[in-house]
Amino acid sequence: MKPQNNALWWEREDLCYQDGWLYFAGKSVADLIGTTGTPAFFYNGKRILQNIGRLHKALGRLGAHRIFYAIKANRFAPVLTYIKNGGICGVDVCSPKELLHAFSCGFNCNEISYTANSMTDDELRLLADNPEVALNCDSLSTIRRLGKFCSHRRIGLRVNPAMGIGYRDNETLKYSGDKTTKFGIYKEQFDEALQLAEKNNFTVDTIHFHTGCGYLSNQLSLFSEILDATHWFLDKVKDLTFVNLGGGLGVPHDIDDTPLDLDAWVSIINSHFGNKGIIVCVEPGDYIAKDSGILVLEVNTVEKKRNTDFVGVNGGFNLAIEPTFYGLPCEPVVLTQKTDQMKPVTIVGNINESLDVWKDNFSMPDQITEGDPLAFINAGGYASSMMSNHCMRGQVSENLIV
Amino acid sequence: MKPQNNALWWEREDLCYQDGWLYFAGKSVADLIGTTGTPAFFYNGKRILQNIGRLHKALGRLGAHRIFYAIKANRFAPVLTYIKNGGICGVDVCSPKELLHAFSCGFNCNEISYTANSMTDDELRLLADNPEVALNCDSLSTIRRLGKFCSHRRIGLRVNPAMGIGYRDNETLKYSGDKTTKFGIYKEQFDEALQLAEKNNFTVDTIHFHTGCGYLSNQLSLFSEILDATHWFLDKVKDLTFVNLGGGLGVPHDIDDTPLDLDAWVSIINSHFGNKGIIVCVEPGDYIAKDSGILVLEVNTVEKKRNTDFVGVNGGFNLAIEPTFYGLPCEPVVLTQKTDQMKPVTIVGNINESLDVWKDNFSMPDQITEGDPLAFINAGGYASSMMSNHCMRGQVSENLIV
Repeated sequence: MKPQNNALWWEREDLCYQDGWLYFAGKSVADLIGTTGTPAFFYNGKRILQNIGRLHKALGRLGAHRIFYAIKANRFAPVLTYIKNGGICGVDVCSPKELLHAFSCGFNCNEISYTANSMTDDELRLLADNPEVALNCDSLSTIRRLGKFCSHRRIGLRVNPAMGIGYRDNETLKYSGDKTTKFGIYKEQFDEALQLAEKNNFTVDTIHFHTGCGYLSNQLSLFSEILDATHWFLDKVKDLTFVNLGGGLGVPHDIDDTPLDLDAWVSIINSHFGNKGIIVCVEPGDYIAKDSGILVLEVNTVEKKRNTDFVGVNGGFNLAIEPTFYGLPCEPVVLTQKTDQMKPVTIVGNINESLDVWKDNFSMPDQITEGDPLAFINAGGYASSMMSNHCMRGQVSENLIV
Repeated sequence: MKPQNNALWWEREDLCYQDGWLYFAGKSVADLIGTTGTPAFFYNGKRILQNIGRLHKALGRLGAHRIFYAIKANRFAPVLTYIKNGGICGVDVCSPKELLHAFSCGFNCNEISYTANSMTDDELRLLADNPEVALNCDSLSTIRRLGKFCSHRRIGLRVNPAMGIGYRDNETLKYSGDKTTKFGIYKEQFDEALQLAEKNNFTVDTIHFHTGCGYLSNQLSLFSEILDATHWFLDKVKDLTFVNLGGGLGVPHDIDDTPLDLDAWVSIINSHFGNKGIIVCVEPGDYIAKDSGILVLEVNTVEKKRNTDFVGVNGGFNLAIEPTFYGLPCEPVVLTQKTDQMKPVTIVGNINESLDVWKDNFSMPDQITEGDPLAFINAGGYASSMMSNHCMRGQVSENLIV
């Protein structure tokens, strides 16, 4: 199966129209929802492994490297076990429950990194009890309190280079920058962090940083500047074995986005950390999960209000919060192509809030009628994992296709 | 128990310091979390009934009136049964699951209003089967499709006066205004709505509108203008019995807010709808629930990063989304007053996102240490009801104190 000549920007082998019908993971989406009903999430396991494989291959130029999939993007258990069985990729977790969930899905301690903030003592005790989990300490308090429960542990230090990167320069998606954030250890406190680690006989083997989400090719020069800024930290760590670049690798969200050029990305990494005996680690979430999932909803209301054509569907922002709050749209697409005529519509959900808008003034085929399903692409990351039952409209079917 | 002379702006009889300890609903908050641990929500049943009672008394000046508590603000079952037993107040629901939940909590059809959008056919069939539920139709599509399942039903029409109101003029909280929203029927389509109702032999007995959230006294002149704009609709409805003003009545969120003057509010309503044989209905959510609840978290991290003093707690924006996304803060307060010395701190949660900030640069007593609990006030509405398990940090204890 492959996209036809007149393919839309998001079409690809496993997500495209065939004879006018939308196919995902080799199956007709209309058939899929015939079984599940709507709302329904579908994830394509093979696409997930392709995304991991592409990253793995690109990073291969650096030699040894590690990929930890950030499960906060999507922790659906079948997705995690499928990734585990793929054999290439570990997981990054950020809470005790996520750690136990990773164990449940088959990951071993040495395949897991733990990168959290505002950690409790109980949480640190759990990490002391699992010394092979790669713990990235993001504050002095963490190091100090970890010392209550263990010593001679290997730890990473999450640092904050005070520079940030985010999809379309969205401030919400930046984790560091001019404004001081809760994330990581700044230059001003770094020496004290190293002293604290030494005092507790911890071996600092990793420098970790994560500076933002959703970056694409046009932000790679900024990415390079950020790597520049991290050398100050790296140079101070005598037992450095790993540098963890965090996640943040983005995927295109609309027709104007240019995909991330992985070769250019690796070249930048290589110019900074290549041939230094450092193992590069990454923690992608969205890059692996986001374009591997779709959310299918059903249109129940087609109606002009004043001069706006509204299309109402049976699911709202509580099922996928990013379009509303983060400026990361999930583009709606029709399941059957009946016409080339287009018209602007505003697609809205079923939650009683004014911000419950999927797409405002968006050009769609002029065919949508009540009862039609719509698929929202890029719903594989930070959708179901952040879902709420607001208005008690949180019931949804979740499915992995393998 | 009553606030002392040097009371803070939010202190009141059921939420105040006594001998330096924070009391809520007659109990020491330190004792409360001794039983539950943290994170924990506590709701004061008596405060909820006081809020309802104050509204009921104020509306009493109008004669007959009805209050429907919007359960999407807080649907914790013990809260709902407690309100039911209070005997004054019905409920407003916005989805099939909320309707069934209201039934479960003891409410009868004639105590329930239903105000939803993007309704499915199944949803309309349920409403056809429960004809005594006061249904507010917010689109022509709803009226038309309801006609497939019943006729001769009484219905309300939700209208959109194209004017909006929201806490501090926050656009996110406005449900109508210059921009066309999904909510309600506009002037341009209203005649068609009445014709559709007549064609299906529906009796339109209610005009409903809800134009925004969180308004306080300084917005009452705008509220009056909105009521002005609704007469155009009311005058066209021959069987009009009820006018439903929606919700949106706000509560103070910080020291700069002036509480809503209920007498002034009722005077405005009276000047518009008094002595006309119309029964005024309201659908408050926050006004009843918000200041009736607190969320108690525990500080685990106190640390300077660059020049900012951070206080990290064991719960984040996934437990109460409004401070982050709606500009409606939940002010943090200490459980024990040990000092009058104040200093600015930034209070952050335990979710791996840059926006997970409870309060930025906020003046707190200079005493906070790791292990201290903090109570977040105004956590009774739109907190637990919109909660997610993001980062698998969504476990929380929920408790009603009666």
